[in-house]
Formats: sequence, structure tokens, C-alpha cells
Amino acid sequence: LPLTEFSVPQVIAAGTVGGVPVSSERTVVIAVDAMGGDYAPAEVVRGAAIYLHTHAAEDNSAVLLVGDEARIRAELRDIEAGGRVHANYPKDRLGIVASSQLVGMDEHPMEAFRDKPDSSIAYTIQLVQEGRAHGAFSAGNTGAFMVTATQVLQRIEGVKRPAIATLFPKETGGSAVVVDAGANVDCRPSQLVQFALLGSIYAEHVLGVRNPRVGLLSNGEEDAKGNELVYGARTLLQNAGPGVNFVGNVEGNHVFEGGVDVVVCDGFVGNVLLKGAEGIVRLVLSLLSAEAKNAPDEITREALLASLLRLRQRVDYAEFGGAPLLGVNGPVFIAHGRSDSRAIATGIRIAAQASRSGYVSFIRESLKGAAA
Amino acid sequence: LPLTEFSVPQVIAAGTVGGVPVSSERTVVIAVDAMGGDYAPAEVVRGAAIYLHTHAAEDNSAVLLVGDEARIRAELRDIEAGGRVHANYPKDRLGIVASSQLVGMDEHPMEAFRDKPDSSIAYTIQLVQEGRAHGAFSAGNTGAFMVTATQVLQRIEGVKRPAIATLFPKETGGSAVVVDAGANVDCRPSQLVQFALLGSIYAEHVLGVRNPRVGLLSNGEEDAKGNELVYGARTLLQNAGPGVNFVGNVEGNHVFEGGVDVVVCDGFVGNVLLKGAEGIVRLVLSLLSAEAKNAPDEITREALLASLLRLRQRVDYAEFGGAPLLGVNGPVFIAHGRSDSRAIATGIRIAAQASRSGYVSFIRESLKGAAA
Repeated sequence: LPLTEFSVPQVIAAGTVGGVPVSSERTVVIAVDAMGGDYAPAEVVRGAAIYLHTHAAEDNSAVLLVGDEARIRAELRDIEAGGRVHANYPKDRLGIVASSQLVGMDEHPMEAFRDKPDSSIAYTIQLVQEGRAHGAFSAGNTGAFMVTATQVLQRIEGVKRPAIATLFPKETGGSAVVVDAGANVDCRPSQLVQFALLGSIYAEHVLGVRNPRVGLLSNGEEDAKGNELVYGARTLLQNAGPGVNFVGNVEGNHVFEGGVDVVVCDGFVGNVLLKGAEGIVRLVLSLLSAEAKNAPDEITREALLASLLRLRQRVDYAEFGGAPLLGVNGPVFIAHGRSDSRAIATGIRIAAQASRSGYVSFIRESLKGAAA
Repeated sequence: LPLTEFSVPQVIAAGTVGGVPVSSERTVVIAVDAMGGDYAPAEVVRGAAIYLHTHAAEDNSAVLLVGDEARIRAELRDIEAGGRVHANYPKDRLGIVASSQLVGMDEHPMEAFRDKPDSSIAYTIQLVQEGRAHGAFSAGNTGAFMVTATQVLQRIEGVKRPAIATLFPKETGGSAVVVDAGANVDCRPSQLVQFALLGSIYAEHVLGVRNPRVGLLSNGEEDAKGNELVYGARTLLQNAGPGVNFVGNVEGNHVFEGGVDVVVCDGFVGNVLLKGAEGIVRLVLSLLSAEAKNAPDEITREALLASLLRLRQRVDYAEFGGAPLLGVNGPVFIAHGRSDSRAIATGIRIAAQASRSGYVSFIRESLKGAAA
């Protein structure tokens, strides 16, 4: 990879970030695809600055922005000139890795992987593969990012198909992990059992849930309900053994009610659930925003806006930031194409915390045990 | 059917309801399963009274409450003694049809149909079958209600499998019709094409949408996205001919954005979408309710509660009331088991308006054309 002269990358290679000694045990380095997403690079670069300003010291982390160097530098200058608080982000924790190619949001994933070896997506993954970053993050072409991650980092031994885990807010606080949220559209029952294992390890080691409860997404709680996939997976989940605490069928609403920590489904259904929830949340929040706009007086308006802000923090998908691709040899985080700087900042934070947890090693260990 | 002495039923048979001359062209009569639902019969009976008080005159409609006569009468006495405005519901528009059996919410649908010929569900459907009511409505055991409707009223000629249509709120106002929302879990592509036709007729004749746009629910808008069912259905939908204005694949969020009027999917996916949307809406509204509770002063609290009420009217599933079972020979409406009196009142209203539209005849005509 042709690294630029800019601060971090070489220093990481040499064992320090801006004078701070780093190692995989100490500083967590996240490679961020600066060119990925509907508002890239502006919102991605700004999101990185916000993250670094607010959490990098506490997380002891650094960010490598991967992409068009001139454009990234221009965005950084804008941020520094802008005078907002995050203009004071810790400069010694930011690096740029120049890449010359771009993957469009609609490009065919496999073709993008094959034909664009110098894309920001390719380099972002490569940094993890070479051990120069601990995690990869992109709001760009999801398919291309997944294909590249799977081809370059490879599947963990024993993993049939990597899966996307998405976090959903629970009424009781915390999050439910839904696996798969879009990577695999037509699944076999045995894949759902593996999703249960992957999701459980993530819930335990990243979210801190002990003995996470696993639900099988269905159209009813009763045993008699379900489609062919659910019938097949149900028996397998009941006999999955340690590592999968299966509690039974759950319905779409149960995801949000707090009775389960991990929900498994095929990627088609998970994607519909995710996008549907996003859609109705956006509708509700826009209605509430209109309520604030039409408020009879300033005090009421302020109260409504304050409530809206707190609701967003609990339920807006823009706040959630990144979904891990579970099953590949490295922490890989996929963000929504629509991510704004706030969503990017949250996403990098999740990626940094998850990468530090070592969840990938736990998955590796767990599958080694299963094969033995 | 053993009708009681109470006002309506016999009068309907004789052509009048409480002195008003009725015919199928004039008064719409809805049979309501008074014993169905988590809060039956109290909330169902109250919902009927609210509906009759607020809309029966304008709709020119009447309600037959089907169930345990003594309990229904007791609820009506309570309502009349309660002194709320709906205590003044038009008595000449209400009838009671006594039934002696109850179907529990968890009973096996086919067994309930076979073993309980005198249940409130059986009589509710039978009233439609005998032409003594124009539509049937129940918040009880969905499976039993569907099986009974399908067995007694029978499928419309040419219909492969009846499907549940659910209305989802759109940002642009109005509703999107999602078919199927739970009746058929594993579907073939040709079934989805029929769902498109059924949903389009409902959207046109009940919701007043001209040339409704049909979307195929998928995990991405691109042609390359989708599972096997979507691939198969896509080509068939493109060649479905007049009556189906297919506009392409849509994602979960598009259901709420207003670009399509009818969305087709298998019943498993539709059910997950519906329950998921219900779950997250309940979470958001409960958070907003907590905001109101914790408001710093009375004015802010009132403002938040007023906003909450308006939001509920737009997005709360309790407000939507009833989903038609499309494809059977009669208007049949399924309500959520959790329906309160407000949801029941809305549901009966929807049932009355839809039954008056004659959408069942339009479906019959349309399929006759297709067979020719």
C-alpha cells in the first residue's frame, strides 16, 4: 500500500502513533473508507474528526482515512478552519492512506473487487489483512465491501457464510443482535444455527450480555408457526449444545421488547425487518419534527426538540452506525450509505470497541472447539 | 342461527332496521365477533358502541354483536349507565346474535372450525354467508377466523390462496397495502402475482387509488437483489398485464415512503415486517409517553401529550383496526388480538366502508376475466 507522508501509518508500522507507543494490546487502529457513502468524503472525514475528538483518548484509538488524499486533506482543512469543537481533534491519532480508485454505490460487488485493486474499499480491508489496522469500516457499497472482506481476510475456519449482525434497540435498554441482516438471502437451517453462535459470541464479548438468549424469528411464537426454514432450524437450535441458549420462536415485535438478546433469521427477512424499522422510525421522527415546527410557542418547541433528540439517540438508525460482518478473519463494520457525520462517529466508536474486545478470536476458538 | 329478540337481526331479515328500510344497497350490516380478542367482550362491545355513536349514521350501517348474550347485554348496560357520550349510540342499529361456544386465542384453527360449530366466530362468518350481514369482523383467533371464512364462504373462483392485506402509513399520507401479511408462509411466485392483483383491487376500490403502483418487497431495489421467490415473481409481475401496475423491487423502508401503493411478499416476510413495525412504533411512543411524564411543567406535558395523540393517529397500529382477508367470497376483517375499544371502532368503520365498496365483486369480476 502506498502510504502517504501524513502522520500515523508509518508510525503504526514503527510501533507508535504520534509519539504514543502502540501495539495491538494498546492502541486500536480503525481503517475507515473515506470515499464510501452517500455523503463521502465530507461526512465521513467529519465523522472521523468528531469520533477522534470525543472518544479516541478514552478508547486509546487511532483512525486511518483511506481514499483520495487531496480531497481528504481539503475536508480536514475545512474542519480545522470551521472552528467547531471537533476542529481540535487529536491530530496524532489520524492518518491518511491514499488510494486511487473509487467503487460506486451501485457497482457489481464481484466486479468491483476484481477490477479495482486500488480502491478505498480494497485498501481499507488490506490494512486489516496486513495487521496495520485492527478493524475496517465503510459506509460505501455494502456488497463490494463484504466480498472484498471475505476474499481478502477469508472466512474463519468452519464458517459456512459470513453474516451481518445489526443492533436493534430494546425497550428494556441495550440492544438485540439480529443475524443475518442481509448477507445471505436463501439460507439452510444449519446456517441459522451458526448465525446463533456468531451472534451469541458478539452479544457476550462486545455487548457484555452473559449467556445471551437466542430467539428464532418467525410469524408466531407457537411451535406450529413458521416456514420451512424455521421448522428445520428449530430442531437444530434446540440441539445446538453449549454456546447457544435457544429460547424459542419470536415475532418481529419481540425483537424490541427485551426478552431475547440474539435473533436469527435469513438475510432476506432480516433486511426487511431492518429497513422496515428504519422506515417507520423515520416517519415517526419526521412527524414529531413537524410537531416541533408547528409548536404554538418557543418553550413548547424547545421541549419537543429536546424530546426528539433523546428519542433519536434511542431509536434512530443513524445513531447506530455500524453492523459487524461476522465470520471473517477480522473486525469489519458496515455502515448505512446514508450515514451522516454523527452516524459515522458512532460507527467508528462501535468498531473500535468491538475490535478491542477480540470477538473474532472468540469466534475462531469457538468454531475450533466445534470441529474437534 | 338462533337470533335473539333484540332489535336488529329479525328486522334485517324483514328488510328494516328499527323502522329504517334496509337493503343490501342501503344499510351496511357488519357482524362483529364480540368474544374475540384479549379484552373481549368488554372492549369489543364498547368499540361497537363508539363506532355506532360516531359513524353509523354517516355510513348508514348497523352492527350485529355475536356471542354470549348475557355478557354482551351486561356490557351494554354498563355502557348505557356509564354516561360517556357513546352511551347514546343509536340502539336501532345494534343487534345481538347469541352463540354458545367460544374459540380460545390459542386453539388449533382447523379443530376449532370442526369442533365448535356454535362459536361466535362460526356465527359471525355464517351471517355473511347467509346474506344477513355484509361483512365479518373479529379480533379473536386469527387462524380459526381465516379457516372458518375460507371453509364457509369459500375462495373466489380462481383464487389460489386467500391473503391478508395490511395497511401501513405513508409519509405522503394515505396507506400502502401489504399483501400477504401472514396467511401463507411459503409461497410460489405465481401466488405473489395474485396478491398483487388482489391488493390493487383493494387499493383502487376501497382506498380510492387510481392505477395503484405495485412493488415487490426485496432486500434491495436492484434487479440483482432478491431471494429465489423474488427472482421468480419479478418476471411474472413484469408480464402480469392490465390490473397490475408493477414498478419494481422495493425495500422495507419504501413501504412507508409513499412511492408505492401495494407491496407484495410472502406471508412470513409480511408478518415480520408488520410485527417489527408495530414493535418499534410501540417503543418510540412509549419513550415519548415517558418524556411527557417527566416533563418539567404542565404546559410542556400537555404539548407532548397532544403531539403523542396525533402521532398515534398516524402510526399506531391500534388505530388501524382491521386487515381484510382477500380472496374469499365476502368481506372479512381480522383485527389485532390486543385491540382496545378505539381500535375496534376503527376496525368496524374500515369493515363497513370496505364492505360497501363492493371490492369482493370487483375481485370476482377480475378473476373471471383472467380465466376467460
